[in-house]
Amino acid sequence: MTNAQVTLIQIDNYGPWTVTPEPRREVDLQTLQSRLYADLSQLVGNRDGYVFFTRFDNMIAVTNGMDEADHAMIQESVGNRYPVTVSFGVGADPSPVAALSTATDHIQDAGSAQAADRTEILGGATLDPDERTDDDVQIAHFDVNDATGKYTDRMNAFDSFIHIEQGYAELMQYFRRAHEGLAFFVGGDNVIAVCPDLDRAAYEDTIQHVEETVNVELKVGVGRAATAQPAGMAAKHALEDCRENGDRVVFEE
Amino acid sequence: MTNAQVTLIQIDNYGPWTVTPEPRREVDLQTLQSRLYADLSQLVGNRDGYVFFTRFDNMIAVTNGMDEADHAMIQESVGNRYPVTVSFGVGADPSPVAALSTATDHIQDAGSAQAADRTEILGGATLDPDERTDDDVQIAHFDVNDATGKYTDRMNAFDSFIHIEQGYAELMQYFRRAHEGLAFFVGGDNVIAVCPDLDRAAYEDTIQHVEETVNVELKVGVGRAATAQPAGMAAKHALEDCRENGDRVVFEE
Amino acid sequence: MTNAQVTLIQIDNYGPWTVTPEPRREVDLQTLQSRLYADLSQLVGNRDGYVFFTRFDNMIAVTNGMDEADHAMIQESVGNRYPVTVSFGVGADPSPVAALSTATDHIQDAGSAQAADRTEILGGATLDPDERTDDDVQIAHFDVNDATGKYTDRMNAFDSFIHIEQGYAELMQYFRRAHEGLAFFVGGDNVIAVCPDLDRAAYEDTIQHVEETVNVELKVGVGRAATAQPAGMAAKHALEDCRENGDRVVFEE
Amino acid sequence: MTNAQVTLIQIDNYGPWTVTPEPRREVDLQTLQSRLYADLSQLVGNRDGYVFFTRFDNMIAVTNGMDEADHAMIQESVGNRYPVTVSFGVGADPSPVAALSTATDHIQDAGSAQAADRTEILGGATLDPDERTDDDVQIAHFDVNDATGKYTDRMNAFDSFIHIEQGYAELMQYFRRAHEGLAFFVGGDNVIAVCPDLDRAAYEDTIQHVEETVNVELKVGVGRAATAQPAGMAAKHALEDCRENGDRVVFEE
Repeated sequence: MTNAQVTLIQIDNYGPWTVTPEPRREVDLQTLQSRLYADLSQLVGNRDGYVFFTRFDNMIAVTNGMDEADHAMIQESVGNRYPVTVSFGVGADPSPVAALSTATDHIQDAGSAQAADRTEILGGATLDPDERTDDDVQIAHFDVNDATGKYTDRMNAFDSFIHIEQGYAELMQYFRRAHEGLAFFVGGDNVIAVCPDLDRAAYEDTIQHVEETVNVELKVGVGRAATAQPAGMAAKHALEDCRENGDRVVFEE
Repeated sequence: MTNAQVTLIQIDNYGPWTVTPEPRREVDLQTLQSRLYADLSQLVGNRDGYVFFTRFDNMIAVTNGMDEADHAMIQESVGNRYPVTVSFGVGADPSPVAALSTATDHIQDAGSAQAADRTEILGGATLDPDERTDDDVQIAHFDVNDATGKYTDRMNAFDSFIHIEQGYAELMQYFRRAHEGLAFFVGGDNVIAVCPDLDRAAYEDTIQHVEETVNVELKVGVGRAATAQPAGMAAKHALEDCRENGDRVVFEE
Repeated sequence: MTNAQVTLIQIDNYGPWTVTPEPRREVDLQTLQSRLYADLSQLVGNRDGYVFFTRFDNMIAVTNGMDEADHAMIQESVGNRYPVTVSFGVGADPSPVAALSTATDHIQDAGSAQAADRTEILGGATLDPDERTDDDVQIAHFDVNDATGKYTDRMNAFDSFIHIEQGYAELMQYFRRAHEGLAFFVGGDNVIAVCPDLDRAAYEDTIQHVEETVNVELKVGVGRAATAQPAGMAAKHALEDCRENGDRVVFEE
Repeated sequence: MTNAQVTLIQIDNYGPWTVTPEPRREVDLQTLQSRLYADLSQLVGNRDGYVFFTRFDNMIAVTNGMDEADHAMIQESVGNRYPVTVSFGVGADPSPVAALSTATDHIQDAGSAQAADRTEILGGATLDPDERTDDDVQIAHFDVNDATGKYTDRMNAFDSFIHIEQGYAELMQYFRRAHEGLAFFVGGDNVIAVCPDLDRAAYEDTIQHVEETVNVELKVGVGRAATAQPAGMAAKHALEDCRENGDRVVFEE
């Protein structure tokens, strides 16, 4: 059984801040957003978690193994180093979608993403140590078969991106609807998903659906562990096995 | 008439590097990618250009006003500070798609994105000062009408993201195919596009198409200038006018 | 009794790298050095340690609570994100000077700081959990009395700096020689020292010596804990007590 | 004749901010300071200037070639990305000390470094383009003879640092007093100075003084240009000549 602990990270009142008193220079916003994401990656990654940039103003993290004090410390560190603050909502559930819904509720119940007086919310409960197991996190790492040969080295860079993006858009929607997994584009031709306790058939089905619908061929490695970092590393090794053996789905055993 | 100078930035041999000798920790890759993007944003932004993260291993920049020496210096600065190097291809054309195609050709002709011996290419020609005009760059800044009220404050964070992403996927494909513009998601509910010399009808058509196809309502501000930064800032002000007056398309005059 | 675990962090073969094949731009070296320091601060700080920038190519850290796996992970993370690598030597001793000497030996014995083939050394032993106690780390936080009123708001910025620097130079030498403490300038008018088990008289003596020798008046707060972060935070609170009550030496109890 | 344009960069009300409402974690302050310095290095360095970290809360920059709009843009960019703001004072004079004094006056006259209501000052005048010449900036790059062999590979890392630091402390004070130059430690065993129009004898005298006083042997390369970056690069090449030929003072011709 999986039991993903998911944290929603939301920049407080970010939209209004970006245009007050005048629109701020885009280059500064882009720098701020990508560095905040990099810092959160490190802060969460140092505790064996994963953060996905998603919309940048709303990021989604897998935080099994992190307790409330860890969350509070990261929130404080962001407040000490950025002109903006962040709110955290936390949820845990065998279904990552259900976990994220709980996490989102905790933030939404405290006020709007654009309410100036709703700052540094830390809502929801982290898993107790004795609730945790070695299979709580299932991570799947997808990539596109021969993306370099088919797209990057052949088409203009935007049309390559359209293909990658199209594959991702179909994957994210289908995988969420059919299998309750949360799939995130992480750069290049890579997508990493946090999953419920899925079997091989679910991944076969997903890959087949994406190929039939938008003609993008995927493969996937799957790993499981108590936290995201070792589960994700197992998934990477499984994906390397796919590459070497021509398999479409490999579970790291 | 527009005359966009577009630079394709490609990390050299990045895919193989990420798994040699073993897959590298995802947290480090995410940090590397997002900080490299932040640095390029600053290096190009300090010269009035814009960079879009796109796939992170392939980034697309609008570089009107930057010459070859500027490109070479940025390439050197990345090489001095990162474990990876970058190649640049440059093209200029009234159509951003054509400019990017030229830029891509210069990199592809020099070798594969996964060739270990193809490093730090600097190909293509920048605009001569006397070719440049005050209308060379047209930037459009789109956002989603009331994304916070309709999605962020109401749905779980992944389902909000699916709506935003779906709107973006349709916009990027239609706008490229119908109007030869390059549209990039830049975080939140924002998309910034570099455009040929489009009129109001083209933007009306695009917004209507996205609404009819995926039911996401957009508005857009448009700015023009000799370089991306002032054109983009004008577009932001035009978008603020949309917000205040309920317009769907505003050109900054 | 204190038992400081000290880690020497040395960039491998850095001097030669900075001038190969030609001298690299100073701005890139400064950016590289200060960001590497910032990253190490975070990586070590997330494990309750402290890093001091010292010479930037040789940094000194207090790493009680961190084991070999923590050190190896940080080394790997630097190698994944920078064009340079780092070596670590570790020592532990009631005297921080003795701990650092052991740490230095481990690196020196493996080869020169400018040997191209001596990379990513990880030498020395970290403290076993059952050797550790709640008083292992004593941190002292010094600052200059009314530095803003006497120097910053009155003299030109370089002459202010000369005064601060002179106070620091005398403090670092005397404190090391007379009391076996390692004192580091950390910005502003602040010096943080990792100390053996010193009493109030040792701090009184040090402050008096600096005042008599170079006419710079200091005060100091002292904290103790199992690791650097809480000891340092206790020292900060003690220093606030100095400020409020006009004391020169306060131990946080 | 030299004519250095010097900018004092002061973080506004930083001391009080670091302890309000409670002392902030040192790791966050260190990260904030060193990243702000890295960003300023890039922002100024992209315009051919140099920034020295000095006390971190007060940094000194050589900004020949930068006008008021450049300063204002950098100030805005810091405000957009950090929880603190910066003030700038600018001065220009054949003597860097005099230039810095003017720069400092502009900030001091506007209020205390610890006044909450004195923020984002931009005082003083930048050089008009027609006042500028190709010899305005003289940069000297000092290093310690065989620092690695004598100190780094032989002594413990703190005692090596004491030697380097002692050499620097004597150099900075003597060079400022006897020759009106501003010398800054920049890491490793390197010191970079911004100088008035000094001849070979002045550098010989300085090196001899430091050797006689604290027994640290230096060498120096000197470069001249219209801005800091090419002057500093010329100084680096001159220092390489010293290394190869055993000279103590080399002017790049």
